[in-house]
Amino acid sequence: MNKEILKQLGDILGRDHLLTAPEELACYSFDGSGGDVPPQAVAFPENTTQISKIMQLANKYRIPIVPRGAGSGMTGGAVPLKQGLVLVMNRMNRILEIDRDNMIAVAEPGVITGELQATLKKQGLMYPPDPASLKFCTLGGNAAECAGGPSAVKYGVTRDYIIGCEAVMPTGKIITTGVRTEKGVTGYDLTHLLIGSEGTLVIFTKLILRLLPLPEAGKTFLLLFTCIDQAVQLVAELLQSGIMPCTMEYMDHTAISVVRDRLPSPLPEKTEALLLLELDGSRSEVQQQTDRLRKFLAARPVTLQEAENEAQRQRLWQARRSISPATFSLKPHKISEDVVVPRSKIPTLVRFTSTLAEKLKLIILTFGHAGDGNIHVNIMIDKNDPEEYKRGQEAKKQLFRQVITLGGTLSGEHGIGTTKATFLSLEITPETLELMWDIKQLFDPNNILNPGKIFIDE
Amino acid sequence: MNKEILKQLGDILGRDHLLTAPEELACYSFDGSGGDVPPQAVAFPENTTQISKIMQLANKYRIPIVPRGAGSGMTGGAVPLKQGLVLVMNRMNRILEIDRDNMIAVAEPGVITGELQATLKKQGLMYPPDPASLKFCTLGGNAAECAGGPSAVKYGVTRDYIIGCEAVMPTGKIITTGVRTEKGVTGYDLTHLLIGSEGTLVIFTKLILRLLPLPEAGKTFLLLFTCIDQAVQLVAELLQSGIMPCTMEYMDHTAISVVRDRLPSPLPEKTEALLLLELDGSRSEVQQQTDRLRKFLAARPVTLQEAENEAQRQRLWQARRSISPATFSLKPHKISEDVVVPRSKIPTLVRFTSTLAEKLKLIILTFGHAGDGNIHVNIMIDKNDPEEYKRGQEAKKQLFRQVITLGGTLSGEHGIGTTKATFLSLEITPETLELMWDIKQLFDPNNILNPGKIFIDE
Repeated sequence: MNKEILKQLGDILGRDHLLTAPEELACYSFDGSGGDVPPQAVAFPENTTQISKIMQLANKYRIPIVPRGAGSGMTGGAVPLKQGLVLVMNRMNRILEIDRDNMIAVAEPGVITGELQATLKKQGLMYPPDPASLKFCTLGGNAAECAGGPSAVKYGVTRDYIIGCEAVMPTGKIITTGVRTEKGVTGYDLTHLLIGSEGTLVIFTKLILRLLPLPEAGKTFLLLFTCIDQAVQLVAELLQSGIMPCTMEYMDHTAISVVRDRLPSPLPEKTEALLLLELDGSRSEVQQQTDRLRKFLAARPVTLQEAENEAQRQRLWQARRSISPATFSLKPHKISEDVVVPRSKIPTLVRFTSTLAEKLKLIILTFGHAGDGNIHVNIMIDKNDPEEYKRGQEAKKQLFRQVITLGGTLSGEHGIGTTKATFLSLEITPETLELMWDIKQLFDPNNILNPGKIFIDE
Repeated sequence: MNKEILKQLGDILGRDHLLTAPEELACYSFDGSGGDVPPQAVAFPENTTQISKIMQLANKYRIPIVPRGAGSGMTGGAVPLKQGLVLVMNRMNRILEIDRDNMIAVAEPGVITGELQATLKKQGLMYPPDPASLKFCTLGGNAAECAGGPSAVKYGVTRDYIIGCEAVMPTGKIITTGVRTEKGVTGYDLTHLLIGSEGTLVIFTKLILRLLPLPEAGKTFLLLFTCIDQAVQLVAELLQSGIMPCTMEYMDHTAISVVRDRLPSPLPEKTEALLLLELDGSRSEVQQQTDRLRKFLAARPVTLQEAENEAQRQRLWQARRSISPATFSLKPHKISEDVVVPRSKIPTLVRFTSTLAEKLKLIILTFGHAGDGNIHVNIMIDKNDPEEYKRGQEAKKQLFRQVITLGGTLSGEHGIGTTKATFLSLEITPETLELMWDIKQLFDPNNILNPGKIFIDE
């Protein structure tokens, strides 16, 4: 990127909103997956027009553009693999509209997910997607990755709540997709094509969100097991019994060990696995579901604890959300996967990871969204130990093969990014992959928007 | 289509599965929207390989291909506008798999929606999308149009239940999209791009469906109003009060008049509008919602009737589903639209249609899915009266303009097809429309698959 281009970028953005100093660029060289490629410049646009102009410039001069929310993604989506310009969206952080009558919100992509949720809560409304990073991740990043979270088992994921958008294409063209009504089938469903496209097709500039009424009541439970098999086997049985939790988070004994101190009360020594389970709905519904749950669990080898107040509940959640960062107490690096298997296959998958850990002499922990079969598998390694690194990569490969054999998918909510691109062909046929690449080229003929993500470089 | 091509088609299909006699072709010249263009031939493929071979042939010789389910679509999707070959999917009608543990079904596109639902019901499972035509329409047609129905207010539409598919592209290439798990973000979301693409991008050959547990209980109510405004105003208020019906169907006095004889009990003379409302869920939940509903309605000017048994309930539904065909007792033809407005705008829209009817001296009735703002507007005409036909077209145009002004969309579940293609640009910007057309060309470079639908011909 030469001086002339930088000058033009400065003219578009205002000089204060363009960074070029190496020490500043270093802050944008990584995301939640690691990475250390500093971009050549970082831009902080404030509106759609600026982004359109930047894209026109980038398309003309073939400058790689990497959109960035909070950089909390887990698969390298925000890493400027080919350098170029990082577009940080955090100045576009206004909630433009909350339409209570029609249960719709319109927001810019830089809005922090948790902040939107807090604002809505005050009005008795809910936007369900709740990734563990909700206190800092953004709606735009959530849309790009199709983020999920613990509430997905009952409420679904980001794609179920974004019904329309405004976006800028790599050519600079501005498109608007979708509707602001409950239903809509006018033309092709571009909205859903864009959600989960990992910043490779467009830059979101406005999102139309579907809202729900805030549930009246909720209860949080901890189910403690002395045997991991019992925990994972219970999941499908429980859902089939007609109990519909809004959360069903699972932790194996290693996951428990890294957050043990953060739990509200000490766990029995023999706890080998736990489920964090929440019920929500109207008061009477929650009561009825609680009665059902107690009855269902009565004859089973499990200890049930109920969070007694909001503080205990918050501590439980804090512990759950801390697992991922807390794992670094075990090893300095990790290979973090968010595979999904059909619910009934969770026991098989969890047994497989145990065997794998033993066989390859690795620490592998499993936790996450058991209710929808989306299990986070963390393979802990020290990258400076080349032997261990190699065994870690081998574990990842064997894990993916097993997941596909079980009828599962490589990623439930983190996306492919750079970390899984080489494995995509395990799951997707050559014909389908070719079609995806053709779509990428249709949107982005010069491959300037987030190049090197999802697809392996030629 | 010359003899040689017909011979090749016969070789692929078996001669018994190819029709060419004029009296047979006539049966495939129309769909639920009318139409009278007979195709040159009709094929009944039985598997994906045959379809792939047919598409290769069609692509080579530029033969228009029109996929057809039950032909019950309302916007011309199955009308062979450019003649060519109609592909009737009704031999591919197997339910391939019902996986109760993982709440997944796999089915061929020719399966009749209502038959799948009946089969699932026996196993305590539910596939929610319930278009009025459910007794004869097919899953493939539902997928192509992204069909909805009365249950959409609570459960959503077809796109919320199809999570993956196998499909044949116009080039003959076979692709597989999506997952068979609750979550999945691997590569672009092609599944959703294909759903609602109105048979213009691919031919579905296999569909993976997400299922729900069958609700334990349900209650059906009829709410009678002496004033139409009160009926439509109640809708948003009721949903905001925390009551979540699984159906909230509205009929104005003209809609009532055409099915009055089919209702289970006589209505009071002064009934100007009614809402057909259903609650479902666990027994206690339904009871609680019923109590809430009675309390909510107590102070309001509405008469509440409850269906006393399954027979009464079935009659109510039969009446509701008969509205569309029964309207022909008023006039021999109709312009049938399924516009959507934000829920709070329903009163404005309904008032607008009354004024429009008066101004243009037309019979216009409104009914449909009030819960999600998807109002069916039927403009009744006699096409043989050129003046009335013209006024009908004028009413349609003014209706669409008003819907867009109110922040609505042209179609909630019927699609664009041929009947609304000229109006698409009212709602979709030139940039977005161009992108949709580019996608069409990417899939179908020779424009052989369902040409003339959605997009206006050059």
